[in-house]
Amino acid sequence: MRATVIHAPGDIRVEDVPEPELVEPTDAIIRTVATCVCGSDLWPYRGLEPVTEPHPMGHEYVGVVEEVGSEVRHVRPGQFVVGSFATSDNTCANCRNGWQSNCLHREFMSTCQAEYVRIPNAHGTLVATDEHPSDAFVPGLLAVSDVMGTGWWAALAAEVRPGSTAVVVGDGAVGLCGVIAAKELGAERIIAMSRHESRQKLALEFGATDVIAERGDEGIARIKDLTGGIGADSVLECVGTAEAMRQALHSARPGGNVGFVGVPHEVAVEGQELFFSHVGLRGGPAPVRRYLPDLIDRVLSGGIDPGKVFDLTLPLDQVAEGYRAMDERRAIKTLLTP
Amino acid sequence: MRATVIHAPGDIRVEDVPEPELVEPTDAIIRTVATCVCGSDLWPYRGLEPVTEPHPMGHEYVGVVEEVGSEVRHVRPGQFVVGSFATSDNTCANCRNGWQSNCLHREFMSTCQAEYVRIPNAHGTLVATDEHPSDAFVPGLLAVSDVMGTGWWAALAAEVRPGSTAVVVGDGAVGLCGVIAAKELGAERIIAMSRHESRQKLALEFGATDVIAERGDEGIARIKDLTGGIGADSVLECVGTAEAMRQALHSARPGGNVGFVGVPHEVAVEGQELFFSHVGLRGGPAPVRRYLPDLIDRVLSGGIDPGKVFDLTLPLDQVAEGYRAMDERRAIKTLLTP
Repeated sequence: MRATVIHAPGDIRVEDVPEPELVEPTDAIIRTVATCVCGSDLWPYRGLEPVTEPHPMGHEYVGVVEEVGSEVRHVRPGQFVVGSFATSDNTCANCRNGWQSNCLHREFMSTCQAEYVRIPNAHGTLVATDEHPSDAFVPGLLAVSDVMGTGWWAALAAEVRPGSTAVVVGDGAVGLCGVIAAKELGAERIIAMSRHESRQKLALEFGATDVIAERGDEGIARIKDLTGGIGADSVLECVGTAEAMRQALHSARPGGNVGFVGVPHEVAVEGQELFFSHVGLRGGPAPVRRYLPDLIDRVLSGGIDPGKVFDLTLPLDQVAEGYRAMDERRAIKTLLTP
Repeated sequence: MRATVIHAPGDIRVEDVPEPELVEPTDAIIRTVATCVCGSDLWPYRGLEPVTEPHPMGHEYVGVVEEVGSEVRHVRPGQFVVGSFATSDNTCANCRNGWQSNCLHREFMSTCQAEYVRIPNAHGTLVATDEHPSDAFVPGLLAVSDVMGTGWWAALAAEVRPGSTAVVVGDGAVGLCGVIAAKELGAERIIAMSRHESRQKLALEFGATDVIAERGDEGIARIKDLTGGIGADSVLECVGTAEAMRQALHSARPGGNVGFVGVPHEVAVEGQELFFSHVGLRGGPAPVRRYLPDLIDRVLSGGIDPGKVFDLTLPLDQVAEGYRAMDERRAIKTLLTP
């Protein structure tokens, strides 16, 4: 089958590799209907994470079940399924607490930019739709498997509530989905921080009430201006850099909340600064499985349309161009069709 | 009047100083009925915070109102009042949000180990009891002004809920009050980390179900043993050192919460570690004013007796011995009577 392999920073190729096979009785094999390129895929692509040997890429997917292991009962061959970048048995203590992305048997997906994918813990990871969705819903459902699930989690971690003021730091696909989530959860004012016209436009379409192009101290001052001088109730940190974390912590009001969902790269939080801010901080890989049934419903009912974050669609064979377009910020997010 | 002054690490004296006077129309002057020595007073006493010039000490107090400024209406001369180490106008945006210890007009108290004290923002800081309490309640009400208020906040910041499992890191007066709070808030299992027999005993009396003497990795392993291998729902960090924060973060389960209330000294939280733990982190100076009416009621109704943390009572003139006894851990907390 055709699958994406990274060989070195900037060197992404589609190659012929063996088709995956069932390994554990809890596995499933799916035929990929759509997959995509994640902002976090750009870390190794840009050389900011080491690439010590060639390895497959991709952790977002929707597909049709081809085959299941003997212990997989929740899904069956032929069904259209949505999953998550982190697999979960959905029965362990952490899953029962709602932290499926910290499942005791978690495996992080990493082979999804391919024609077929093996899904470990398939019984606790995959959620099937009632019927095969029309093509129009595929991008939205694909977004749910990661960026929309992550934006949702960012808003919950930041404790967005009806009537609250939310700031979204980061205008990538996750940040934009964070705007959708803040809106759905009832935020009255949603301030998107973005300096890119296409992303500003999409943020406003998703429900942002204000857009701030400034960053750093100037950005923080603008936030304070818009929030009665004290800062926002909730801040969604959707980047993962030290600068973004600083922006987020300083944009929250005393006693406000920061949800941080970008994988932190060289981020440290100073204890005394956090202490005197009274800001609550929670982050991590989104427990997407917890939200899947609800988010799938919201997409299929037309309530939300996170598929709009895909502004470039390419056949899998052109994956290299998909990465390049995102790296050069010509595309927000690239959808790939095998 | 007689008042406590620190001259250098280890050098605490009671001296004659001028009586305080009203400065702002929102001030009150109180005659101190009881004050005490705080764990945080030991930082400069031990030379871990600089003492650049002689300065007064003390931020915990109950007393009787002597005089009020023209804008103080909520309390009047003759009333017995309880306050907080942080003053608040109780009307600004942060106060209205419940973060009185982040009041836009906040002043931290620092002159309370004395016969008389000026209370800024008296109208929003002091809460009067219906009548003068009997002597038996004075220690409990004094504890409410700081350590009990702080233990309460630690438990709320750690999101202790009915049925949850709570770990308390730190067996000082705040940690012990944290045990009381966890119990009142319905925690089913309360694990106190302590290696001092008198404190272990008081923790058990206050409601701890388990006591762990081990620290560091061994302590973390013991916590995991007691919590189904995953850690506790809530952890109250009542110390403020890097080691205590590490202990706290590693004792919480994925998705659990750490409330940190010891002023952090050289504490930094690594972003990626916090991220993958899913642990929520919130701390700061306790918004004691928010809890005062409730906690005063609990003390006066006999529901809680945090006054038991005072195991040494001295006249103000012997304040030096009060510090020494706490420094040498001969006393948990010293109450001073002017």
